[in-house]
Amino acid sequence: MGRVTARKPVLRIRDGRQSTRPDTLTVEEPMELRVGGRPLTITMRTPGHDFDLAAGFLVGEGVVRRAEDIAAIRYCAGATDDGGNTYNIVDVALIPGVAPPDASLERNFYTTSSCGLCGKASLDAVRTQTTWPVADDPLRVTPETLSTLPDQLRAAQRVFDSTGGLHAAALFTPEGELICLREDVGRHNAVDKAIGHALRGGTLPLRDTVLMVSGRASFELVQKAVMAGIPMLAAVSAPSSLAVDLAEDAGLTLVGFLRGTSMNVYSRPERLAPLPVTR
Amino acid sequence: MGRVTARKPVLRIRDGRQSTRPDTLTVEEPMELRVGGRPLTITMRTPGHDFDLAAGFLVGEGVVRRAEDIAAIRYCAGATDDGGNTYNIVDVALIPGVAPPDASLERNFYTTSSCGLCGKASLDAVRTQTTWPVADDPLRVTPETLSTLPDQLRAAQRVFDSTGGLHAAALFTPEGELICLREDVGRHNAVDKAIGHALRGGTLPLRDTVLMVSGRASFELVQKAVMAGIPMLAAVSAPSSLAVDLAEDAGLTLVGFLRGTSMNVYSRPERLAPLPVTR
Repeated sequence: MGRVTARKPVLRIRDGRQSTRPDTLTVEEPMELRVGGRPLTITMRTPGHDFDLAAGFLVGEGVVRRAEDIAAIRYCAGATDDGGNTYNIVDVALIPGVAPPDASLERNFYTTSSCGLCGKASLDAVRTQTTWPVADDPLRVTPETLSTLPDQLRAAQRVFDSTGGLHAAALFTPEGELICLREDVGRHNAVDKAIGHALRGGTLPLRDTVLMVSGRASFELVQKAVMAGIPMLAAVSAPSSLAVDLAEDAGLTLVGFLRGTSMNVYSRPERLAPLPVTR
Repeated sequence: MGRVTARKPVLRIRDGRQSTRPDTLTVEEPMELRVGGRPLTITMRTPGHDFDLAAGFLVGEGVVRRAEDIAAIRYCAGATDDGGNTYNIVDVALIPGVAPPDASLERNFYTTSSCGLCGKASLDAVRTQTTWPVADDPLRVTPETLSTLPDQLRAAQRVFDSTGGLHAAALFTPEGELICLREDVGRHNAVDKAIGHALRGGTLPLRDTVLMVSGRASFELVQKAVMAGIPMLAAVSAPSSLAVDLAEDAGLTLVGFLRGTSMNVYSRPERLAPLPVTR
């Protein structure tokens, strides 16, 4: 739709001098996701691959697990004052028998735990929702192959090059071949778009697949990987404590600070094989 | 509470060799915000300054505007299995006459606009909620002073140094003196904590103040600045298109890619004074 980037004039200051020129920006627009016509959530996202985003979000929430669970995805008429469709409202119709999500606030944390709100309750919630256990996935990736992923990610990021403002998420084979890359202002949206693309293509669960993200690894990103059956998540930057806790709990291999030939492995390191010698 | 960082064993791979050692991670834990006992939102945050976070979030939502609007903030009993308080549920009691927020999904986008969901509707929503217009704020900051902010931000970031995993938000005077810095796994939380600290200290609106953030500038961050009466937002990285649109609409000065003596000014550049000569 040609709405991924926008041009704006900008005043540049460099070394004590000013100049004005057009700058390319990443587009950010709200998208409302509806399920069966009922509003579920609003996210600020970069337009494009919106149906993948919708499908992937619903995988992460445990609502859908097969392409067939979705009867149809369409843009709702969301007309602006001049009558044009904004393409910012997406409605997902589920097939009979697939339960729509519970949009209430309490759902995420209280259904699975009687204890107070804490990290452990969050882990319990994911464990209950998980469709495909990743703990026994036989994936093996060499550290040398992992080392190639950040450069591949960056090389495939077309929009980042022009704006410097996009997160990326990509799926790779164990041999380091790029399967799918998606970009977005929000890193969670980029992951949803990649996973949604896989769902719609019939390739879930994503066994024997590595998910690589351009930024940090939060609890939320590990959750999305686990819900899609992905056994390994690699991030350019740091993970949080709860991301590591969930990776350990689910049996996912979590790699952080993946830069050049350096990386930190926070859980299930046996999937990196063969491991180099001990220093 | 000593829960800002956590230690975990990590397998490090460097230049073809492995070693195991403890690594310091940023703690991420869920926090539920209640208003008058009713759940409003759950955010994944780094524990610490939780009452500032709660207060700042409510400033951004247009619920409170003075310290006196809040009767009390307290941790709810959210006991774990062994009976300990998790300190992850915060309840804010408002004084009589201050309306609690509407937790419905429709509120954010539909109350102020009859058009379809789009960026313009988002701008309209902020314009309607704004308490203190920033367009006429007489703030002036020299580019030389702005150039000092990133180094000051990094120098004051204690936790980032040990984990590499935290966003920062800081308030500065026009002379570049640090007023308050807050860190969090979520950049929006770091901003809420800084603004909430100001609210509770009685210094809102934050006229004549610069907000500096460690990452990118999204619509959401510009919204939070505008709602606190802050006339200038500076970011280390790129802004989004909608962030620039809102900055223009509200009359906020938005600076991006602030690195050393380089910066891009996307709106209201006259607040950078004196500007350097034209190249």
